[in-house]
Amino acid sequence: MNPIQLFDPVSSTFTYIIAGPNDDEAAIIDPVDEHWERDLAHIERLGLRLVYILETHAHADHVTSAGRLRALTGAKAAVPSGCGIPPAELQLCDGDVIRFGKEETIAVLHTPGHTAGSMCYVWRGNVFTGDTLLIDGCGRTDFQGGSAAALYDSVTRKLFALPDATRIWPGHDYKGQSVSTIGWEKQHNARLANRSLADFVVLMGQLNLPRPKLIDVAVPANRNLGLPHSV
Amino acid sequence: MNPIQLFDPVSSTFTYIIAGPNDDEAAIIDPVDEHWERDLAHIERLGLRLVYILETHAHADHVTSAGRLRALTGAKAAVPSGCGIPPAELQLCDGDVIRFGKEETIAVLHTPGHTAGSMCYVWRGNVFTGDTLLIDGCGRTDFQGGSAAALYDSVTRKLFALPDATRIWPGHDYKGQSVSTIGWEKQHNARLANRSLADFVVLMGQLNLPRPKLIDVAVPANRNLGLPHSV
Repeated sequence: MNPIQLFDPVSSTFTYIIAGPNDDEAAIIDPVDEHWERDLAHIERLGLRLVYILETHAHADHVTSAGRLRALTGAKAAVPSGCGIPPAELQLCDGDVIRFGKEETIAVLHTPGHTAGSMCYVWRGNVFTGDTLLIDGCGRTDFQGGSAAALYDSVTRKLFALPDATRIWPGHDYKGQSVSTIGWEKQHNARLANRSLADFVVLMGQLNLPRPKLIDVAVPANRNLGLPHSV
Repeated sequence: MNPIQLFDPVSSTFTYIIAGPNDDEAAIIDPVDEHWERDLAHIERLGLRLVYILETHAHADHVTSAGRLRALTGAKAAVPSGCGIPPAELQLCDGDVIRFGKEETIAVLHTPGHTAGSMCYVWRGNVFTGDTLLIDGCGRTDFQGGSAAALYDSVTRKLFALPDATRIWPGHDYKGQSVSTIGWEKQHNARLANRSLADFVVLMGQLNLPRPKLIDVAVPANRNLGLPHSV
């Protein structure tokens, strides 16, 4: 089973809709505020009902539509417990399992590094990696409690321990790529394959990336599920 | 099973990679010339081997990478017999079945209308509709033997006869949409739902669309699988 993969070209963010075969309940992962109508249209066209909205972390580069989707559908918001998103119904911890539909399960992996609270979600041979592991890359580690050493540990000990055939669906891609596998990234990832922890920490420390333009707006908004704080 | 859906933002063309679960053989549908490296990278990362390259028709808005992918992988090109693409190994007719992998089958539907030879392909509850049926729309019918009456017949008698839950993966989308279902399009498609043949023919006759910019280059190239004619 592959997810439905949707893309926001402005922030290069992927959103995913997942549902079991011949099932009518769906979950959505990392929805983007500007696309709430597009996403609900997909759920409607597919004959699905939204029951869970998952966030991999409190994003710094775009605002989530989680609060809006929750209000419109009655779905529950499920977020990493360490990301400071108090309005969500489910505060997820490592090892939690979310169940929906006839027999769908989402296994929750705490993968700190991009942010201290970041989570990955495993469903039917797929892993949704948010900004922890990207295709041939990884998320930055220089804000929101980010840590290169923690990211190295999360990827090499937790994600690379998944079966090689596990499909990786990242939170972003900037080169037109859509999906990878644990086996391929373990062998080829430009930042993480065959690199020591010490080398990785040096590499990440030298990136000198610009501060995300939206961080001062997006993070506070996302800690309220994308809703204005007065609501 | 959903396909891997890839997008060309220049021509708004979707390319699809399909493979069975735990299988190592793949087929690709409507690959775009500029993205041959991206597409092969996906096939490699997924641990797959390309065995078929399918075209839904001879495209007028982009050039296929079919010939190039065939040369690089040894995959067979499979094209509609009525599209005038002589170098392809498989000249498909309505009702043909393509088999690959452990137990994958692609059923071939001849759906004239966008072009006289256009085909749709059915795989595991999905239909790849090329430019015959789009999400909430349909392809134009004013060149390459196109016919509004034929398209109406192809969609209402052949595609709408598929089970309602069948997922529609179109050849293009211009509004950020990715997937629909037969059931939804039957009820809501802006051009075809609840419209008579006569009304549809009038509607299509009044579109007055500009001639595709690339048609004089793309169609001859695509009739040679995207390769220069001297090769």
